[in-house]
Amino acid sequence: VTRQANKKLRRERIFNIAKRLIAAKGLEDFTISELAYEAGVTTPTIHNLFGKKSDIIKELVSNLIEKMQGIALNPPIDPIENAKFFIDNVVAVFEQEGDFYRAAFMSAERVRLFDPRVPDGIFQRAQQLAAPRKEWYESGLFLGNIEPSTMMKRVHNSYRLGRIDWVSGYIDLNQLRHQVLEGMFLVYASDASPELHARLIEEINGLISL
Amino acid sequence: VTRQANKKLRRERIFNIAKRLIAAKGLEDFTISELAYEAGVTTPTIHNLFGKKSDIIKELVSNLIEKMQGIALNPPIDPIENAKFFIDNVVAVFEQEGDFYRAAFMSAERVRLFDPRVPDGIFQRAQQLAAPRKEWYESGLFLGNIEPSTMMKRVHNSYRLGRIDWVSGYIDLNQLRHQVLEGMFLVYASDASPELHARLIEEINGLISL
Repeated sequence: VTRQANKKLRRERIFNIAKRLIAAKGLEDFTISELAYEAGVTTPTIHNLFGKKSDIIKELVSNLIEKMQGIALNPPIDPIENAKFFIDNVVAVFEQEGDFYRAAFMSAERVRLFDPRVPDGIFQRAQQLAAPRKEWYESGLFLGNIEPSTMMKRVHNSYRLGRIDWVSGYIDLNQLRHQVLEGMFLVYASDASPELHARLIEEINGLISL
Repeated sequence: VTRQANKKLRRERIFNIAKRLIAAKGLEDFTISELAYEAGVTTPTIHNLFGKKSDIIKELVSNLIEKMQGIALNPPIDPIENAKFFIDNVVAVFEQEGDFYRAAFMSAERVRLFDPRVPDGIFQRAQQLAAPRKEWYESGLFLGNIEPSTMMKRVHNSYRLGRIDWVSGYIDLNQLRHQVLEGMFLVYASDASPELHARLIEEINGLISL
């Protein structure tokens, strides 16, 4: 094992300990010194590998977005299947490490990590993932009467509110799935061709949501 | 002045002091004993007039919903004018006592005052205000392909997310207005007659939102 690979492995191990600590006690009570203690290294080592506490948090959330961007690489082309593919993958990620993500999101809102006013911030990167595909306009599935950027914002908002409700403990992951799909499908329906509109309505009326 | 009227006046005066204290320091740091001190009465008097701290908070939020229900008594019949009437009135209420409402909402989410799982809770009462009107279906403005209850939920969700963004400090009241209208109009567009749909699109494309 090279020195670089070694460093990477060590970094990953400490990163996972950080996640466990945040899941257990929240972001506010998470400290570099406790992380160092749990990982059996010194605090300068942590600082050297990750930077400040806020750098670790940013990296954790960035990781999530990258995970979702990775997921989004080869999605189904049909808008309805595409939406289901997106939310199923989000739910799968949350399911794996629910405690961590809830703790991270709850604190992230508080420290304004999702502040939409930050240019090229996490908000903007996540919003981009909700952009309708060019093909949907080219094939006539979307009529193009409403700005694609408006569609993107409202799809992202549907996901955002669902996530907030899940983080608040109001809904579980299955309800999150239904709520986000309902929101996405209604947004799509506002600019859909008659054929797509009919399919969307069937989907919407089959959902059980908050 | 009768004894009843006197009590009512005193209650109102203390209620306004409570609002001022909550606006200044948030709900968490608001205490009955400080309220008593500021109002120049004893803590048993406060308890006698209002009950516990949580009772005061519930009353404050209930008051807001009643204010909005009052507003909703004589709204315009046209869906677009109706939506504007609703949000303009909400914004006017928030404008008057913005600091108080932001502090109250922020803490209310934390103490789960808006938990949708509470039957006949604040969430349900607020959601009812977003119900589409029967006349919109009777006159054919709304096609009725999507359940009215789904429309209601999504309209309420549009308002809810806007409020959360405003309470988080991400948007100002003017942006709140645009964001909520955009959400409401997109929901309406998903089930609108062609005539209403065309009008909604014109409105949507004229909004500047997050």
